[in-house]
Amino acid sequence: MKGKMRAIQKVRREPGFDLVEVDIPEIASEEVLVKVHATAICGSDVHFYNWDDFAKSKLNPPITIGHEFAGEIVEVGDRVKRFQSGDRVAADSHIVCGECAVCKIGLQHICQNLKIFGNETDGSFAEYVAVPETSLWPLADDVSFDIGAILEPLGGAVQAVLVEPVTAKSVAIFGDGPIGLFAVGVARAAGARKIYHVGVIEDRLAISKQMGADVIINNLKEGVDAVQVILDGTGGVGVDVAVELAGAHQTNKQAFETVRKGGRVTLFGISSTPMEFDFNYSIILRQVRAQGVAGRHMWDTWHMMDGLLEAGLDPQPVITCVLPMEQWEDGLKQMVAKECGKVIIKPQL
Amino acid sequence: MKGKMRAIQKVRREPGFDLVEVDIPEIASEEVLVKVHATAICGSDVHFYNWDDFAKSKLNPPITIGHEFAGEIVEVGDRVKRFQSGDRVAADSHIVCGECAVCKIGLQHICQNLKIFGNETDGSFAEYVAVPETSLWPLADDVSFDIGAILEPLGGAVQAVLVEPVTAKSVAIFGDGPIGLFAVGVARAAGARKIYHVGVIEDRLAISKQMGADVIINNLKEGVDAVQVILDGTGGVGVDVAVELAGAHQTNKQAFETVRKGGRVTLFGISSTPMEFDFNYSIILRQVRAQGVAGRHMWDTWHMMDGLLEAGLDPQPVITCVLPMEQWEDGLKQMVAKECGKVIIKPQL
Amino acid sequence: MKGKMRAIQKVRREPGFDLVEVDIPEIASEEVLVKVHATAICGSDVHFYNWDDFAKSKLNPPITIGHEFAGEIVEVGDRVKRFQSGDRVAADSHIVCGECAVCKIGLQHICQNLKIFGNETDGSFAEYVAVPETSLWPLADDVSFDIGAILEPLGGAVQAVLVEPVTAKSVAIFGDGPIGLFAVGVARAAGARKIYHVGVIEDRLAISKQMGADVIINNLKEGVDAVQVILDGTGGVGVDVAVELAGAHQTNKQAFETVRKGGRVTLFGISSTPMEFDFNYSIILRQVRAQGVAGRHMWDTWHMMDGLLEAGLDPQPVITCVLPMEQWEDGLKQMVAKECGKVIIKPQL
Amino acid sequence: MKGKMRAIQKVRREPGFDLVEVDIPEIASEEVLVKVHATAICGSDVHFYNWDDFAKSKLNPPITIGHEFAGEIVEVGDRVKRFQSGDRVAADSHIVCGECAVCKIGLQHICQNLKIFGNETDGSFAEYVAVPETSLWPLADDVSFDIGAILEPLGGAVQAVLVEPVTAKSVAIFGDGPIGLFAVGVARAAGARKIYHVGVIEDRLAISKQMGADVIINNLKEGVDAVQVILDGTGGVGVDVAVELAGAHQTNKQAFETVRKGGRVTLFGISSTPMEFDFNYSIILRQVRAQGVAGRHMWDTWHMMDGLLEAGLDPQPVITCVLPMEQWEDGLKQMVAKECGKVIIKPQL
Repeated sequence: MKGKMRAIQKVRREPGFDLVEVDIPEIASEEVLVKVHATAICGSDVHFYNWDDFAKSKLNPPITIGHEFAGEIVEVGDRVKRFQSGDRVAADSHIVCGECAVCKIGLQHICQNLKIFGNETDGSFAEYVAVPETSLWPLADDVSFDIGAILEPLGGAVQAVLVEPVTAKSVAIFGDGPIGLFAVGVARAAGARKIYHVGVIEDRLAISKQMGADVIINNLKEGVDAVQVILDGTGGVGVDVAVELAGAHQTNKQAFETVRKGGRVTLFGISSTPMEFDFNYSIILRQVRAQGVAGRHMWDTWHMMDGLLEAGLDPQPVITCVLPMEQWEDGLKQMVAKECGKVIIKPQL
Repeated sequence: MKGKMRAIQKVRREPGFDLVEVDIPEIASEEVLVKVHATAICGSDVHFYNWDDFAKSKLNPPITIGHEFAGEIVEVGDRVKRFQSGDRVAADSHIVCGECAVCKIGLQHICQNLKIFGNETDGSFAEYVAVPETSLWPLADDVSFDIGAILEPLGGAVQAVLVEPVTAKSVAIFGDGPIGLFAVGVARAAGARKIYHVGVIEDRLAISKQMGADVIINNLKEGVDAVQVILDGTGGVGVDVAVELAGAHQTNKQAFETVRKGGRVTLFGISSTPMEFDFNYSIILRQVRAQGVAGRHMWDTWHMMDGLLEAGLDPQPVITCVLPMEQWEDGLKQMVAKECGKVIIKPQL
Repeated sequence: MKGKMRAIQKVRREPGFDLVEVDIPEIASEEVLVKVHATAICGSDVHFYNWDDFAKSKLNPPITIGHEFAGEIVEVGDRVKRFQSGDRVAADSHIVCGECAVCKIGLQHICQNLKIFGNETDGSFAEYVAVPETSLWPLADDVSFDIGAILEPLGGAVQAVLVEPVTAKSVAIFGDGPIGLFAVGVARAAGARKIYHVGVIEDRLAISKQMGADVIINNLKEGVDAVQVILDGTGGVGVDVAVELAGAHQTNKQAFETVRKGGRVTLFGISSTPMEFDFNYSIILRQVRAQGVAGRHMWDTWHMMDGLLEAGLDPQPVITCVLPMEQWEDGLKQMVAKECGKVIIKPQL
Repeated sequence: MKGKMRAIQKVRREPGFDLVEVDIPEIASEEVLVKVHATAICGSDVHFYNWDDFAKSKLNPPITIGHEFAGEIVEVGDRVKRFQSGDRVAADSHIVCGECAVCKIGLQHICQNLKIFGNETDGSFAEYVAVPETSLWPLADDVSFDIGAILEPLGGAVQAVLVEPVTAKSVAIFGDGPIGLFAVGVARAAGARKIYHVGVIEDRLAISKQMGADVIINNLKEGVDAVQVILDGTGGVGVDVAVELAGAHQTNKQAFETVRKGGRVTLFGISSTPMEFDFNYSIILRQVRAQGVAGRHMWDTWHMMDGLLEAGLDPQPVITCVLPMEQWEDGLKQMVAKECGKVIIKPQL
């Protein structure tokens, strides 16, 4: 498809993005062209916007940002087999080699030659985006493009919560960013016994209540001790499962202090620095299992998401803002200010 | 505690029971005396009532019937450590040796020296019952005695459904007896993707709807083919999990015909005769896993039940009838006629 | 590569094969040409040779037979990425779609659109064979071509035995064909507690001893009751794991009668007819898990095989005969007579 | 049994033990009296001997030391059911409540009311010892008392290595104390692909070779970089499983640096201080699972040990010294100097 389109790009090696006009991407033989109906802003996009050290190490401008999206296929390459024009799709942001030792044992999402879509290739903050067939996921008929656009981060929450079953188990979730809010919904949908949610922002914790949290704890509230609240609530035993999604030293510590003997701590939140850690108490003597989760599995987690949505999981309350493309910077400013849940941009509006 | 009480006994080696007056049981050192507040009629009790071959092989009259119950402790033996008078309790019907090869690997419920409470010892269709401490389960404060009395059969459903996780999975449940109805509720509470429930009795299938089934199929309805309905509903792939609770040849066959390649069939329903079975198609070529379930695990399943009840599982709709002790025979007749869900008898009314 | 080569083909729709001269296959873009150094005769090839009903339903002559092989790549298609000329390789016989519901959850080997190499396409009883890159497995330097040629059936044994761990467990293996003999070696290498091997052919059971069986039982020997021997050897409890590889009604029955309560029966052997089966005793009341295994997983099982060979598993004793291509019919006759273990044909000799 | 016996006691709150004459212990109703044939010195006994802070926090003198032993029952209490005089037995050192939330889910060994035999009660460095029936394990006929005396620490190694299967997997074991040496033997018996053993004492690493290590690495040897050796040996990928048994900061770091993406690190060695830990690299981004192991499971691990011994695991090379009771201090001095493997004391010699 020939022509011009609008795209939000990192044009220069400095803070900010630009809404620019560029060529509609040409697709390779094994790619499709997707007309983007909804694309969501990720925390990593905020880093790119701010042009911090992380961003400098990742991006090579000019590049179109964005890797969480859903849309409709409008053109397919000649070697594409499973998809056709008109198909509604979402996509995983991971481009994997499929051949390394890690891929071969089914862990493609931590492929040793991993590329991230919208970091190393032009992304989805645009009217059109080129996507390899191998990264596409068919969108069920009754799933909206807005929900389709947040499946990628929802997948992180699903993997973090459900890496082992939580049905009938008590769960403490640390971190109230969008993935934390999704995690609450996932634990609820999966039949968790009781969900404790620990965060720092009242507006987000209010959404958490909607997502199904039983006990909300604000770490910034004076006189509140999250560890004590959770231990009291579990008869001093601790929760079966603690899920750390904030990456803060405080919540990491709380996760290990609130998990019961023999329980599971899932670690997902990236912290900015190493931390002092007491292996004896935290892991060994209490026989705790600390499971790192690096994202969705391809495609187990996506398959599971389809199932959870059908089972009744509703991530809609986490989407707090839907903007036309021109107002992209409002969305980013909300993200910077942490005043929002998930922000969706609609290139087609 | 000295004195007389009323009890429903098999007095003679013939059909029927009698409501008789007997001594309140004396307790041994490691037993407690429970004042029975609610006791439920099990399918096996119907066999005992009818005095069929199964009953003849099991019972040695006179014996008080009943093994599903909840009540309050009114007396404790001198070696009892964890319970005291006033405690609200339910109980597992299994009396296990704790020492055989099977017990030693954590499968007490299939103990090689298993005794069933209310079969080999005086049971709970009585105002008082003596129970070994090792069979007791503390009843949570917000769980009623009626629900407490059906925890034992509910545990079978929990074990059958959750022997492997069902969250986000499609599930077909075969059999609409009380355990089938419980199973629907358990799958729903655990976040199953979609629940197909196959039965034969409209009144029970109506309860199933309340318990959360998505698709109800009546095997007796003309022109309805359960296998076809389920395959159509799953795009021809089949369900992830099939749970057979009816013990009929027809439903056994349907379970294997509706499970997907690589899926799980849980077998729980006892059939009256062996059946012709095609291992090639049913198990081997489609790599299916057929898991027998023989009842609740002590005490994993009970612990899980506490969690499910707290998570929102409500088994109440399955209890269709609560009767004072004098009307015990009405309850048994309903059970014989399969006109009911679970029938509860209240010895203290 | 242009030219002629020798190949063993089913030329006509009747019993027998022919050694014929045909064109060296042309390769497609994503295929490689392998110079076959060793190829093994599978039980299914015997069916093809005999031209029985199974064969008639599978083959469309003329076709080159053979799907167990190893060799050296001599030519690569222009879209092949991971392999190059000179690479030593083996191959999985499964050609999978990679896209169906079953493939998507990691069970490619039971792909809903499965094709078998050497059944639906020209196979490896030839000097050269064309193979899709996606079916290739790199052969470790210290693994001979002969061992390479039997990795495919060995993979069946590995999957059947190790679908759940056997370390420190008692194992009974039923069936003394090549896969049964491999299974003994696999259980031994994996640290099984004690291995009972039940077969019918003394010569093969002698190989079993070499592979590490502790107790050899010949079902045809008068006065020997395999079930009794195994129960006696396990204190009446039964084995932790029973692996059925013969597909006979007798051994199927024995597998369920010798497994302990709560144990695992793996079913792999295809039987010619359905059989009468007592679900109550065999599976439900004793809480047994019957796991069908339909072959190697791609590529978990292959990866595991590399590990087992490095750990010391030696399948060499199972290879009882290595023949030059001209003597192919001797090999088939041995297979028909069940006088052998595994027979290897060397097209390059 | 009335009379006097010799015992090694901590008599005073200061360094050292004393060989004293004391009364043979009286047994309670549910206890047995064991004539100790072999008892082994544990690392914790060295702390008690040295009277360090750990010892001061644990012991309340006078107390007989020792908790690893095997012997023969010479007297049984009147409520003992499963054992009788003449039985050969070993014992788990854990005295558990069986009733707390953790016990109830099958993790007795981390019971919330745990007592250690020989710490809080009189132990096995004596001619006789009183043991609750619930702590006894029957010793198989072909297992010597010496091996019986080291089953307790061997159980730690078994649990650490086999908490998940290692068959066909590459394993790196850190720490060359007795449990490290046992761990090598366990990984070998279970069919590990390749075993890297990292230690600091040449004499112990020589025993490791006997136990089956493939690659021995001495962290104290100049120019040797354990991480590099292991990465080179695994094609840069890392090992599937790393087992940390030394409790040193260096080996903890090495374990996380040598495990592959998606792999397992088992943590067992107690470190003296917290350490700086990079969760991002070590656990999250590489999706590593860090599993704490706090000792043997009762009784799964013991059952597994019986199986491993029958499968051929031979822990004998780790026993480097067997002494009569009078020479107990030689044994302790060897332990202090780390000049030995396991030291056994024979009270009956």
